[in-house]
Amino acid sequence: MPENFSVDTLFNHARSQNGFQNTPVAEDVLRRLYDLMKMGPTSANCSPMRVVFLTTAEARARLTPALSPGNVAKTASAPVTALLAWDTRFHAHAERLFPHNPQLYRTFADNAVHADRTAFRNATLQAGYFLLAARAVGLDCGPMSGFDEALVNETFFPDGRYRINFLCNLGHGDPSKLFARLPRLDFNEACRVL
Amino acid sequence: MPENFSVDTLFNHARSQNGFQNTPVAEDVLRRLYDLMKMGPTSANCSPMRVVFLTTAEARARLTPALSPGNVAKTASAPVTALLAWDTRFHAHAERLFPHNPQLYRTFADNAVHADRTAFRNATLQAGYFLLAARAVGLDCGPMSGFDEALVNETFFPDGRYRINFLCNLGHGDPSKLFARLPRLDFNEACRVL
Repeated sequence: MPENFSVDTLFNHARSQNGFQNTPVAEDVLRRLYDLMKMGPTSANCSPMRVVFLTTAEARARLTPALSPGNVAKTASAPVTALLAWDTRFHAHAERLFPHNPQLYRTFADNAVHADRTAFRNATLQAGYFLLAARAVGLDCGPMSGFDEALVNETFFPDGRYRINFLCNLGHGDPSKLFARLPRLDFNEACRVL
Repeated sequence: MPENFSVDTLFNHARSQNGFQNTPVAEDVLRRLYDLMKMGPTSANCSPMRVVFLTTAEARARLTPALSPGNVAKTASAPVTALLAWDTRFHAHAERLFPHNPQLYRTFADNAVHADRTAFRNATLQAGYFLLAARAVGLDCGPMSGFDEALVNETFFPDGRYRINFLCNLGHGDPSKLFARLPRLDFNEACRVL
C-alpha cells in the first residue's frame, strides 16, 4: 500500500466519488488511516473526533433511512461508510491528552458553549486530515452532508455523548460515476496579502 | 521546494511550532499553498474559506492586541501569520462554484442558520487542508485559537462579511522552541468498526 503518495495525489488528482468498485477494504487500512489522521494538530490536543466505520450490509442498513435520496445508491456501493462524529465530553480525556496540565480542560468542562465550539471546530479539522489520510493510504473518499442529523444521532449515538458531523464513503472509486471537476476560487478571490 | 513530501512528513514528523527562524516566505509559496488547499472537497463546492496573510511588521502589529499573552512572542517571530476566516456570503459565488445548478445555493441564501453551519464546517475542513498543504510546500505551521475573536473581526473585517476562524503562523520552525509530542488516542479509544 503506497504511503509516499505525492502531493498531487492527495490534493490535485483525487476526486470525490459517487460510486465504488466492489473491492473490500481491510480493517488494517482503516487503522493506518486513523494512525496518520490522529497526528494532525488540534487545539490543546483536544482530539474530539470519533469515527464509526460501517463495514457490513447490516450496519449500513441502519444508516440508509437517514440518507438523502441522492446519497443512497452511492453509499450502498461503498465497502465502508464512516460516521465522522465528535465527543461532546472530549474534555474527560484531560489526563490522557494534556498530561502536563490537565486543569486547562476545566475551561471546557465549565463552559458548554466554548466546549461545543471547540469540539465542532477541532473535530472538523480532524475530518479534513481524515480525508487526506484516507487518500494517503490508497482509498478514495465520498464525503456527504446530505442526511438527517437527528436520525443518525438517535440511531448510532442514543446516549447523546457523540454527535454526527458528516459522513464519508470509503473504498476504490468507480471512475464512470465521476462528475466533471468543479471550478475553484483563484488566490486573488479568496486571499489577501497584507 | 519539495512537492513530493512523504506522508510521514505531512502527518508524523511535522510539529506545531512555538517559534520561527528568521527566514522569509515568498508570496509564491503562499500561492502554491493555496493552489493545493483549494482542491480539497467541500459540500457542494461551497469553498467558504478566506485567508488574510499578514507578512509585514505593520500588518502583524494590528493583530497583536487581540492575541492571548502566550501567543504574542511566537507570532512576532513568524514571517507570516495567516488569518483563516470564512465568507458569510459564500453563496454569492453560486454561478462561479456550482455553474451547472447555482439554484442549489438558494438553500443557503434562504436559511441563515444552515448557511452559518455550512460555512463554519466547510471553512474548517479547508483549514485542515491548509495546514497539510502548508507542510507540503515546505512550511511549518503554528495554529492558534487563543485570541479575541471579536477584536480580530472588528480590526480586519469591519464590514462583517468575513469572520475569523483561527490563526496560523507560517514559516520555518525553530526546533529549540518545540514542546514534547503529546499523546494521541488509540484507534480503539476513538473508533468503532460495525
